[in-house]
Amino acid sequence: MATRETQALILDTALGLFNRNGSNAISTNRIAAECGISRGNLHYHFHNKAEIVQSIFGRIVGSMNNGSTADHLDPTLKHMTEMFVRQSLLIHKFEFFYREMTTLLPQDELLFLRYREHREKRLVSIEQFFLALKDNGTMNFGPDPAVVASLLTTTWIICDSWPNFVEFQGIEFNAGAICQGYDLILRLLAPYITIDINEVTKSSHQTIYSMLAEMSPNKLTSAN
Amino acid sequence: MATRETQALILDTALGLFNRNGSNAISTNRIAAECGISRGNLHYHFHNKAEIVQSIFGRIVGSMNNGSTADHLDPTLKHMTEMFVRQSLLIHKFEFFYREMTTLLPQDELLFLRYREHREKRLVSIEQFFLALKDNGTMNFGPDPAVVASLLTTTWIICDSWPNFVEFQGIEFNAGAICQGYDLILRLLAPYITIDINEVTKSSHQTIYSMLAEMSPNKLTSAN
Repeated sequence: MATRETQALILDTALGLFNRNGSNAISTNRIAAECGISRGNLHYHFHNKAEIVQSIFGRIVGSMNNGSTADHLDPTLKHMTEMFVRQSLLIHKFEFFYREMTTLLPQDELLFLRYREHREKRLVSIEQFFLALKDNGTMNFGPDPAVVASLLTTTWIICDSWPNFVEFQGIEFNAGAICQGYDLILRLLAPYITIDINEVTKSSHQTIYSMLAEMSPNKLTSAN
Repeated sequence: MATRETQALILDTALGLFNRNGSNAISTNRIAAECGISRGNLHYHFHNKAEIVQSIFGRIVGSMNNGSTADHLDPTLKHMTEMFVRQSLLIHKFEFFYREMTTLLPQDELLFLRYREHREKRLVSIEQFFLALKDNGTMNFGPDPAVVASLLTTTWIICDSWPNFVEFQGIEFNAGAICQGYDLILRLLAPYITIDINEVTKSSHQTIYSMLAEMSPNKLTSAN
């Protein structure tokens, strides 16, 4: 196998094992065995587990940047719903990272720095998006700039924490659960949205269900 | 030492070690050594580390219940600030648990069940508090009961996640940081509070600073 293919195999395999068992329970030897490659071959590509986690985080950043660079060019509430779904699916795909983030980050200075850098960039791009919604009259935050900053931080906290919150409630992660999480954000933003919030809620649920139906039918249940 | 004293020593020592190093890095042998007792003595009181974590969680629940049973009998915004400070200090005291919660809970069914039971009770008591604020005219949520439920969930998510968010920003946990976290909650609730929000914010910051000044001067910095 070419280097890129082997690295991709290692990262895919590690991600699956980490998601199912937690990264702590999985050694690099176990990953090598699961890949059907030698320990030496794995260590040629990644010196240790920390490097594997860093590379997986690199994939998260890559996916997020890919999807988000043009967000502010489409400042609609429908697009905001799509951003939330995209983010929720990403968190679900890399669920071990979001579950273990609070223990992984303090253990790895490099990962911590990359995470902070990524978060700052993302917060700036979401702020641009909010301000574009303000400019076209969809939202009205009033004259105090601290309002947008505060709503931005809480939106971020909900996005990052919601999947864990769902897990602790014993709810399956599906379109219904994504709607529940998004409703928290809509409730937070409702007082600043200039369009009827019941209409907004209804059409965003439609967007969420149809996005998930297109992507992976098995993620849908009858929940609503 | 009497049984209660030995158990308290073990839990105090474990908490300190877990907070500083993460619970994963600490064995029961290490805890026994730090306590100056034999391994056998420790295992007489706690069969394994999971039981120690469960007992520490019992302390969290005990502290929270102690402080909160009468919250709805004092439905004022000042009291809401005090509730947030109490909760923030508790999370800070038991910081390893809130940092590792997302990995600890899936590993231990009993802990998971107790956490969920505790959370449900707490959500009910905070809802009672919100409704008491509504009854005395301090807040107005409108006719839709889903509004209170949504604000409650987001308030909970902010409370639980804020200390980790602070840590990831590299900010020290002090009165200024508690004010920043509380401002998120005030911003969330502002559209439903019937009193001028700037006044509310100002007096809640005063409450936070004076509570922390009374409790432990070393937690205060020049921030704010």
